Amino acid sequence: MAGFSTSARSSLDLSGIFPPIVTPFEENEEVSYDKLTENFSKWNDIPFRGYVVQGSNGEYAFMRAEEKIDLVRKVRELAPKDKLVLAGSGCEATRDTIEMTNRMAEGGADAALVVTPCYYKNGMTSEALEKHYTKVADSSPIPVILYSVPANTGIDLPAECIIKLSSHPNIIALKDSGGDITKIGYVIHKTTGNNFQVLAGSASFLFASYCLGAVGGVCALANVLGREVCKLHELHKHGKMEESKLLQHKLILPNTVVTKTFGVPGLKKSMEFFGLYGGPTRSPLQPLKDPQIDELREIFKLFGGYQG
Amino acid sequence: MAGFSTSARSSLDLSGIFPPIVTPFEENEEVSYDKLTENFSKWNDIPFRGYVVQGSNGEYAFMRAEEKIDLVRKVRELAPKDKLVLAGSGCEATRDTIEMTNRMAEGGADAALVVTPCYYKNGMTSEALEKHYTKVADSSPIPVILYSVPANTGIDLPAECIIKLSSHPNIIALKDSGGDITKIGYVIHKTTGNNFQVLAGSASFLFASYCLGAVGGVCALANVLGREVCKLHELHKHGKMEESKLLQHKLILPNTVVTKTFGVPGLKKSMEFFGLYGGPTRSPLQPLKDPQIDELREIFKLFGGYQG
Amino acid sequence: MAGFSTSARSSLDLSGIFPPIVTPFEENEEVSYDKLTENFSKWNDIPFRGYVVQGSNGEYAFMRAEEKIDLVRKVRELAPKDKLVLAGSGCEATRDTIEMTNRMAEGGADAALVVTPCYYKNGMTSEALEKHYTKVADSSPIPVILYSVPANTGIDLPAECIIKLSSHPNIIALKDSGGDITKIGYVIHKTTGNNFQVLAGSASFLFASYCLGAVGGVCALANVLGREVCKLHELHKHGKMEESKLLQHKLILPNTVVTKTFGVPGLKKSMEFFGLYGGPTRSPLQPLKDPQIDELREIFKLFGGYQG
Amino acid sequence: MAGFSTSARSSLDLSGIFPPIVTPFEENEEVSYDKLTENFSKWNDIPFRGYVVQGSNGEYAFMRAEEKIDLVRKVRELAPKDKLVLAGSGCEATRDTIEMTNRMAEGGADAALVVTPCYYKNGMTSEALEKHYTKVADSSPIPVILYSVPANTGIDLPAECIIKLSSHPNIIALKDSGGDITKIGYVIHKTTGNNFQVLAGSASFLFASYCLGAVGGVCALANVLGREVCKLHELHKHGKMEESKLLQHKLILPNTVVTKTFGVPGLKKSMEFFGLYGGPTRSPLQPLKDPQIDELREIFKLFGGYQG
Repeated sequence: MAGFSTSARSSLDLSGIFPPIVTPFEENEEVSYDKLTENFSKWNDIPFRGYVVQGSNGEYAFMRAEEKIDLVRKVRELAPKDKLVLAGSGCEATRDTIEMTNRMAEGGADAALVVTPCYYKNGMTSEALEKHYTKVADSSPIPVILYSVPANTGIDLPAECIIKLSSHPNIIALKDSGGDITKIGYVIHKTTGNNFQVLAGSASFLFASYCLGAVGGVCALANVLGREVCKLHELHKHGKMEESKLLQHKLILPNTVVTKTFGVPGLKKSMEFFGLYGGPTRSPLQPLKDPQIDELREIFKLFGGYQG
Repeated sequence: MAGFSTSARSSLDLSGIFPPIVTPFEENEEVSYDKLTENFSKWNDIPFRGYVVQGSNGEYAFMRAEEKIDLVRKVRELAPKDKLVLAGSGCEATRDTIEMTNRMAEGGADAALVVTPCYYKNGMTSEALEKHYTKVADSSPIPVILYSVPANTGIDLPAECIIKLSSHPNIIALKDSGGDITKIGYVIHKTTGNNFQVLAGSASFLFASYCLGAVGGVCALANVLGREVCKLHELHKHGKMEESKLLQHKLILPNTVVTKTFGVPGLKKSMEFFGLYGGPTRSPLQPLKDPQIDELREIFKLFGGYQG
Repeated sequence: MAGFSTSARSSLDLSGIFPPIVTPFEENEEVSYDKLTENFSKWNDIPFRGYVVQGSNGEYAFMRAEEKIDLVRKVRELAPKDKLVLAGSGCEATRDTIEMTNRMAEGGADAALVVTPCYYKNGMTSEALEKHYTKVADSSPIPVILYSVPANTGIDLPAECIIKLSSHPNIIALKDSGGDITKIGYVIHKTTGNNFQVLAGSASFLFASYCLGAVGGVCALANVLGREVCKLHELHKHGKMEESKLLQHKLILPNTVVTKTFGVPGLKKSMEFFGLYGGPTRSPLQPLKDPQIDELREIFKLFGGYQG
Repeated sequence: MAGFSTSARSSLDLSGIFPPIVTPFEENEEVSYDKLTENFSKWNDIPFRGYVVQGSNGEYAFMRAEEKIDLVRKVRELAPKDKLVLAGSGCEATRDTIEMTNRMAEGGADAALVVTPCYYKNGMTSEALEKHYTKVADSSPIPVILYSVPANTGIDLPAECIIKLSSHPNIIALKDSGGDITKIGYVIHKTTGNNFQVLAGSASFLFASYCLGAVGGVCALANVLGREVCKLHELHKHGKMEESKLLQHKLILPNTVVTKTFGVPGLKKSMEFFGLYGGPTRSPLQPLKDPQIDELREIFKLFGGYQG
């Protein structure tokens, strides 16, 4: 096992909101660090707990290893010291995940967000997943966060698997993007006492997750409406249940259009309504059509910041 | 349109817990009204809002038309006047659903719970479902509750469809057993002002549903642990969020085993641990095997009432 | 066990094509025996092996018990003596399936087509399905045909379950509408010697099924293009593989539109192009829209018989 | 567009069997070229049409870019000149796929097998997939073969998409591993005249695919039972339908266990029964347990070559 300790673990408090930041590209699909810097100049004013770099919304599936690591390094520079940087280091092979995790740690990541491998679906048994995460956590110098995102991977990390892994000293949290609130509640219940944290993987079920005991959220929508998502965190923290509910209600539709309905191209486009840089995605993802942009604009108009 | 009115509608307050009662059978699979009476003698001590008769857990798919109607009549007699009786009247054909709804109304049902038709899955478009429910609601003398239970039907009543139907004066509520808390929140948000009520279709996501604005629950688990489920209702009502959360945590596993894991045979068996009559299901549902019963017993032991 | 014998079994040769006949309704959704008689006056000229009455395409899910039995009786009268009548007798409850099978046998059915129960999906284990079919076959005076149609039921009768059941003396065949040619081939292989017959449940994979060893087909498309479907049977029988292939190619698209794409409303509409009575379906199935009818007409124009 | 021509296209005849070769690893998970050479010394005696390198069974998802290209180069050396080498070059990003395709062409691949991108499932519309494949084919110096493998990717390349792409001069074939024989037949029908070839992606539905017009197969099982799979090709070619059927029947179960049931670990283990090198997979795939090995051995015993 590498250099982690239980005390280090307990000190990494994930309570709060993390935007899984988009990766800005030029028209030729090359990463634009200028645009990234621009976006951070705005994001850094928002009371985020930190940033997720190279999550699904960061188009990590389209990025090469060197690009990923450079991006982590750059984000670590752009983010204030007190903000956490969580880096998506999951690969299909265990060996690649271990190497990527180590390199991202060197690049300054505070924790690694490790998505489930998914190509060999039939082979991704609970046993295979447990061994994978255990090996990665054993050799990682930074804490590991489990990441389940069945809409992309077709794999829903089983509750029992999460519960077992929660006792590993270097596995500190789950980011759950599946949104099954029963599973989220059950996992929180059964990991009580393991100092294990759960993050809602979407703004759509953020409030419900808080009610069940989640500590924060990694929410695509926070790229666009960061203040509103952070406000929901604050409202819940202060026990304002009715206001929380009403704000949650308002966030579901905008969140849905930038995730399920239009995905990353929709997320990037909506950022432009608020003066952030969205830009193109990498191919094969396609830009939105005009009627889709109109639909998106209509939905975000309600949030006042529209500058289109 | 039949004899309903908006005022009648607003007077039917569904806030609270409804067990979707099991149908007790003798060993020869005939309905046992004696056992039903026995069970009611215990259930009536619990502060339920009412009863659902002929829901999925009542094995309605195995019951003939006359049996269903007799059962509604009998339940109306056994339940105190101030308890609501919601009767499952959904059939595949619109015409059959209309007739069944009318006959159950005559039998004393306060509202009809109408499951989505599901055999011709490809044909169950939003348009088809909207027309179906509109026709049923138009000709029903009692209010209609939409019922979506994708685990059994393979059909998840679309949110937009529910929202449209919520403006029908005789459609007063949704029972959602899918458990997608995002959808539940969205539906509640978009039906605000329509005097439309949402019931959680399972104890597993009851607390989350309350937080999002649901008024009550139809929970299989309430057949067994009625007091505990009612207590969760009360705790939330009085703003005790932390206690609600902890009680919800405890209820997920027992609820899961009597629904997803073991279904109606598990539900009936667990009732026997608490002095209620469970008895056999109709075939082709199979009784639990001994190791499954042991697993079930272990889980319910925590709730003290075990008498096995 | 009722009065069946192995010798009776071996004498029921299912080789050939069976249209799963649509149930003709008047505009008020009542069964029209006049229209049924009209259709039979045309169907009886086609070299079908027999008819399936009250299959999925017969809208059996919308029919009441008495209607189903009357229809079987009527079809038995309308069909020539040498044509087999296979009657869909499957219900959710084992007891109802047994009674319906017996009553359809009295009504003149030569064999019972028993669809998998499907409402309690989690409970439909291999064990439950085997017991269900065994009980039904044990008490049926006529041979039983297993019927798997996952697109409607969400249940794919497992291959191992079919193989076990194939040794029951009163279970003579499988109608497989799932279309997994690997499963079809495997079942045929493992039931060799059990005198067990397999029928393709759709014209889309009829030729492939013949190549693997199926003896015939129950094909929705045979309601409309009966001669063409029978011709495919003949071509294969006489070893004309190239011609079989080309005819099969031509039949896929028309078959797809009257099943997957437009379902029973499409099937009924296309019958009208060829001088047969289609008429309305029962609600909640919806009639086709004009552009859909145009699409359908275009596809069937190739088959010359168009009279629209 | 790069240097391809229609005439070049027509000259690449894919008729025959291709094993999608496994990648041999040492115990430390490093590629073993010695073991690869050993395996080729046996495979080269079998009348394969060629080899697929870096398909799903080659664990391409676990391989780094340089490893993939080296492997293509090595396989080109090990395979006789008259055997085709088809190389799996699909990546998530279009730009990566283009580069990989070009590098594999330089390495000696005769054609590129391009799997559907799949991580951003919601974004993989027909339009996105068509643009992806068109860009890749436009810039590829070697012909492109579409590759649809929904069991791994969750994406079933739509028939209409394949049909459109079939008219691209540099897209010459489809490898379909979904096994929907209706889709296979329809695609063959609608691409007639486009000089477009279809390869069955599995030995389980190879014979049915031939009957519908496929020209060959890429079959995991050919790693183990290469002669038998080639024999099925020959039998069909010479019109021996009955013998083809019986051989196909025999191959379904062994094929199923080395694909669906046990996947690549099962495939590699079964190779060892026949004197080939299987060895470990990369992690997180797990080795078979003893009872699984026994089951596998039992099934392959029938094929006589067992040396365990």
